[in-house]
Amino acid sequence: MDITHIEHLGIAVKSFDEAIPFYENILGFKCYAIEEVAEQKVKTAFFKVGQTKIELLEATSDDSPIAKFIEKRGEGIHHMAYHVNGVAESLKELDAKGIRLIDKTPRKGAEGLDIAFVHPKAAFGVLTELCEKPE
Amino acid sequence: MDITHIEHLGIAVKSFDEAIPFYENILGFKCYAIEEVAEQKVKTAFFKVGQTKIELLEATSDDSPIAKFIEKRGEGIHHMAYHVNGVAESLKELDAKGIRLIDKTPRKGAEGLDIAFVHPKAAFGVLTELCEKPE
Repeated sequence: MDITHIEHLGIAVKSFDEAIPFYENILGFKCYAIEEVAEQKVKTAFFKVGQTKIELLEATSDDSPIAKFIEKRGEGIHHMAYHVNGVAESLKELDAKGIRLIDKTPRKGAEGLDIAFVHPKAAFGVLTELCEKPE
Repeated sequence: MDITHIEHLGIAVKSFDEAIPFYENILGFKCYAIEEVAEQKVKTAFFKVGQTKIELLEATSDDSPIAKFIEKRGEGIHHMAYHVNGVAESLKELDAKGIRLIDKTPRKGAEGLDIAFVHPKAAFGVLTELCEKPE
């Protein structure tokens, strides 16, 4: 497993209209992209902070995983994503070690990344994503 | 406000004995320090991932904020910390903008950093720390 850095932090918010001005005007970051991930029923807003991105997540539907997360736990950090060299190989390695995975093979996420999720129960309560930019 | 990068992520765990082997043997990081912060009633275990540290937090007492967090929400990400140039000045700036703060002036945290917390209600559910290495 060759993790290089924390690629992004996913933060669930109720409303971009309220949250984006906080990240821009108070923390001083710049929102460089807003993207919809239709299959996840979310919109994403990206900010760059050093090596890591902040990915704000807003539900586009009441049955979005993000809407359910906020209903249950309130707004806050939803997941963290490690950049790894070789997502597919890393998943095989984790699977062989008996680590519970949500995705056994990579799929496409925001920004065209190859992504996969490790089950939070396997990672001490942290919904953990592995991702890399495809060649 | 001059935030340079994400300094660390604080993750609440029940037991270092179980969590540290996951971070070392499964994710491949190295625990380079274990430190007790007596006034917060926690032990901290540090790992470096690119620019950012993972700070595992284990309660040393049942009335530790970390014990209460886990009781209420389960294990998981507890807070995130931005490295900022000038914590004291940043707090003044936030206060002047009406941002609710937990600490109006910096105090000492793990690794000798000057730290301060912004209230999670002001940061859309994210317990947000500002920190910097003193000169």
